Amino acid sequence: MSLPLEGFTVLDFGQVYNGPYCGFLLAQAGARVIKVESLIGETLRARGEQTTSSYPFALLNANKESISINIKSPGGQTLIRALAAKVDVVSENFAPGTMAKYGIGAEALTAINPKLVYASSTGYGNAEGPYRDYLGMDITLQAIAGVMSITGEEGGGPLKSAAAFADFIAGTHLYAGIVTALLKRSQTGKGSIVDISMQDCVFPTLATALGTYYLNGEQPARAGNRHPGKALAPYNTYRAADGHIAIICIREGHFRKLCQAMHREDLASDPRFDSFKTRCENMDALDQIINQWTEQHSRQTLLELTQAAGVICAPVNNLQDVLNDPHLAARGTLESLPHPHFGEVKHMHSALRFTGDSPRELAPAPALGSGTSAILSELLNYDEAQIAQLADDEAIGIGPS
Amino acid sequence: MSLPLEGFTVLDFGQVYNGPYCGFLLAQAGARVIKVESLIGETLRARGEQTTSSYPFALLNANKESISINIKSPGGQTLIRALAAKVDVVSENFAPGTMAKYGIGAEALTAINPKLVYASSTGYGNAEGPYRDYLGMDITLQAIAGVMSITGEEGGGPLKSAAAFADFIAGTHLYAGIVTALLKRSQTGKGSIVDISMQDCVFPTLATALGTYYLNGEQPARAGNRHPGKALAPYNTYRAADGHIAIICIREGHFRKLCQAMHREDLASDPRFDSFKTRCENMDALDQIINQWTEQHSRQTLLELTQAAGVICAPVNNLQDVLNDPHLAARGTLESLPHPHFGEVKHMHSALRFTGDSPRELAPAPALGSGTSAILSELLNYDEAQIAQLADDEAIGIGPS
Repeated sequence: MSLPLEGFTVLDFGQVYNGPYCGFLLAQAGARVIKVESLIGETLRARGEQTTSSYPFALLNANKESISINIKSPGGQTLIRALAAKVDVVSENFAPGTMAKYGIGAEALTAINPKLVYASSTGYGNAEGPYRDYLGMDITLQAIAGVMSITGEEGGGPLKSAAAFADFIAGTHLYAGIVTALLKRSQTGKGSIVDISMQDCVFPTLATALGTYYLNGEQPARAGNRHPGKALAPYNTYRAADGHIAIICIREGHFRKLCQAMHREDLASDPRFDSFKTRCENMDALDQIINQWTEQHSRQTLLELTQAAGVICAPVNNLQDVLNDPHLAARGTLESLPHPHFGEVKHMHSALRFTGDSPRELAPAPALGSGTSAILSELLNYDEAQIAQLADDEAIGIGPS
Repeated sequence: MSLPLEGFTVLDFGQVYNGPYCGFLLAQAGARVIKVESLIGETLRARGEQTTSSYPFALLNANKESISINIKSPGGQTLIRALAAKVDVVSENFAPGTMAKYGIGAEALTAINPKLVYASSTGYGNAEGPYRDYLGMDITLQAIAGVMSITGEEGGGPLKSAAAFADFIAGTHLYAGIVTALLKRSQTGKGSIVDISMQDCVFPTLATALGTYYLNGEQPARAGNRHPGKALAPYNTYRAADGHIAIICIREGHFRKLCQAMHREDLASDPRFDSFKTRCENMDALDQIINQWTEQHSRQTLLELTQAAGVICAPVNNLQDVLNDPHLAARGTLESLPHPHFGEVKHMHSALRFTGDSPRELAPAPALGSGTSAILSELLNYDEAQIAQLADDEAIGIGPS
């Protein structure tokens, strides 16, 4: 069966995580994704490393082609306009106004190609507002959007998640907006301009904390791994013999099942723990009792005991655990592929899974400009002399083909 | 201009955040979203509260209709099968196997309606694998997927983000999978089964930490608000006179601009700070110098000074700051609406923004079962006597209409 986005072509100007993750999802769903890079290549190629293909770059740019175009040059801008006439989607996450500054913004390109879906994601979106032109990255979005204020140890300072989720949740919305616009186009024949703000995308993730805020009328104190607002217990990480595990009991039944798994059925009728309310009031005592049980067992044993009893529990896995996770392997999410510098590394398949469809076979991220000549020849009918001239003019870069 | 998903009808069995956020995005994009609830209503209605409409419930269920159906009853199951024949999408995030146990799983419903898109999101997805039947929630996914292991204070224990991002990033993928399947259906005429695993969705957010892992061959130590792997500086939160701000310098130019904003141009040529490498080696000294500057100014002043200089910076906002954020107001993301218990509260519009389209006018979350009679009458032609009989049989609940 064919992949859902076969036949669609995308110009992906994405950088780092947000835009490139969107392009990754598009490529894995079957689209032809042409990664447009400057003459020195996308910044993530070498981020923090002495190599030209960092692991995150390899991960997020699988199955893409690379065309190297200097969008600061008039010749490069002409090429972008010509390519925009031939493709279905342009996606970018530059600083606000970058594409327009070079005459290749949303208005210019959709005027050339009214069927085009032009999609951008920035820190704060393209609509009017005081932050519109502000630069944003994952850490600053976690700050301004409220995430840090509620995250951290009890009594400690505000903390970010080390997972770059503001970038990735925005990239997922960018993909979602593009496909929504393509679906609309299938009915109307017309393209759209999609505008994704990272700040907008992060807001809903505050739901629990905002619920507590409106209930109590004040900012909940940072609560470590406990429930924001401390309105649910057990809800925490606990010490295992070989690390930590997380347990959450959202219904009375979960707590009774946990008591059974601990062989402490007496706790369910203990007046300190016999209701949501009393368990929250005696949270410290309850967590201490649970720790006394968990620290006797390994994470794996605790996982099996709790899941067998119907308790919601999981080990706190480190990165090596995650890369070797038996479920991610069995499900086919992670797959080993050779990397130019690090030997075998784990690549992911798309989290968009369609039952019965085979996922796209993973192909390595492209070398910089390796598709330049072929793409210009195929999509724009440029001949060798024209391509050589553009390269001489430093409008394009021709990589190893 | 019409909204992109007008004309599509969705049965939304979503609970808490993951499924309901997907339904929220569908509704705001113009779909008719029928929220299917048990006779006592979705758990989020009263989560941790003494009310029947928690703030998160109101937030995520705007513009939905509510039908109350007891899917444990044969009469309720018959209704679901009849409704599935009439709609475009069924979306659910129950524990694995719940829908199939009641004879209304993906295979049963897509057999009834081959054009149906049946989409589910669970902790670990529906494909074969050791965790398939495990229960998962946001905190346990942050644990098992590696997020906690890299998040936390230097020298402290593993920590979750208090933002429920595992739930929301999965809900965004669930929406993305559904719209992708609808786009494919527009070409093939056939539905799909969409399978979203929260664990899959969280994996890419580890990108920075995994890059460090492959580069150094070991788990990076938890680094507070610093770069995971400490390969970039300045990159931290800093003390302001009235809280904290976050600053990140990803290019040499950003650091020079920060030095200018601080009136400390000397630092850019100081041998301790004149390259990425030396700045990382002297991170503590550099952070101390920056703190000496930032603690003299308010967050707002620092935001203006840094953004004017082209530095990537943002205040660490608390929840009240976020709810009153001038940009979220100016952009039209947040809007005040009355809430049955909390007075005026801030609702969000969709983060999927299409330039030139007016967002859907927000309508409050429905009362439990308030749409039951009308939906059964309209979609299935049931008459009053049939509906009364189903209510007597406790197959349905009829709320205030």
